Amino acid sequence: MNIINRAASILLLLVFFLAFFQNSVHGRPLLLSMSRPKPDDAALFARWLVSQSSWGVLNTIASDMGGAPFGNVVSFSDGLPDKGHGIPYFYLTTLDPTARNALKDQRSSFTISEYAIGTCGKKDPENPSCAKITLVGKLKVVTEDPKETTFAQTALFTKHPEMEGWPKSHDFQIYKLEIEEIFMINWFGGPKPLTVDQYLQAKMDSHTVIA
Amino acid sequence: MNIINRAASILLLLVFFLAFFQNSVHGRPLLLSMSRPKPDDAALFARWLVSQSSWGVLNTIASDMGGAPFGNVVSFSDGLPDKGHGIPYFYLTTLDPTARNALKDQRSSFTISEYAIGTCGKKDPENPSCAKITLVGKLKVVTEDPKETTFAQTALFTKHPEMEGWPKSHDFQIYKLEIEEIFMINWFGGPKPLTVDQYLQAKMDSHTVIA
Repeated sequence: MNIINRAASILLLLVFFLAFFQNSVHGRPLLLSMSRPKPDDAALFARWLVSQSSWGVLNTIASDMGGAPFGNVVSFSDGLPDKGHGIPYFYLTTLDPTARNALKDQRSSFTISEYAIGTCGKKDPENPSCAKITLVGKLKVVTEDPKETTFAQTALFTKHPEMEGWPKSHDFQIYKLEIEEIFMINWFGGPKPLTVDQYLQAKMDSHTVIA
Repeated sequence: MNIINRAASILLLLVFFLAFFQNSVHGRPLLLSMSRPKPDDAALFARWLVSQSSWGVLNTIASDMGGAPFGNVVSFSDGLPDKGHGIPYFYLTTLDPTARNALKDQRSSFTISEYAIGTCGKKDPENPSCAKITLVGKLKVVTEDPKETTFAQTALFTKHPEMEGWPKSHDFQIYKLEIEEIFMINWFGGPKPLTVDQYLQAKMDSHTVIA
């Protein structure tokens, strides 16, 4: 009985450490709650990758750097966890070059790596089976539709609670990427054919959610 | 004595799990061996961030997408672990748009987030104290200098052992970013003033290495 108790204690300790490290190693919140779709289902896979990610690199044209493509690390959200709509929303200030660039030239792209969410195992980040997606389009301020503004703000502040407290004096505004083209590699054999319509209409709720 | 033995066993198990999770959670190799420099030392901090990272987003101009800035997830290396020179080298194929774009228009940037290496704690990826760097310059094939080619290949294959086995038929070539401008945020108050010379000449070996 004594041995069983001790074994139980050890087990409990291990479970505790397992849970603790899964949630805290590298300071990443565990956003993953939906299982990884099969790579063949390009639309669902793309939507999954976007909805599970919390940050990426947002690209604009820097006219003050000779028209160079300028990538910038930003946080984003496409909706509440597991309820994303596929359109990435951002919270940007013109104190930062990305927002300033976009106001001059809306051409933009947004790039996400599956490596960042931790589901690539031991694969190299450039291995085609470790997925990557680039959404190409126009970066615009969200102002006209109050319903969209509310949706985007809730999406952002839920995934990034810090944002709500960022300095008012910095004039953060909500931006979105209006997607025109999608480049995704999630397996060998080159980019997956995927239209913007297929991507936006993918049914996320048909997919298994892990409790 | 029995209790001490049992306590030792539990301790050993915990140490094992600690080591195991630190190395394997999210499939990230633990590259970190140099301690994080103080944010004030911009040059050293930038070199540390680049040398500790294994991937980033490489941005080029996509003439076939209306001249949009096109970000792409790539692996890179600036040298052997803790012996980087600050110049990022890549292993790219023209089967991929990034290399094709660069051969038409060398304007490029390369973006890295500290969030990806796991030293941002619970901070949001867009929090200014979670560092990000964008190296802006020209993306070029490395061919002329055999010494540089050897250095770059060793740097890449050491950090990314998979690369050596990538299909010969894909004609991978070594590229480098010739840096012209540096944008780095690693604390509040906007981008750190940092010239390319200061960055390239920072003395990495003066910095503490954790065994």
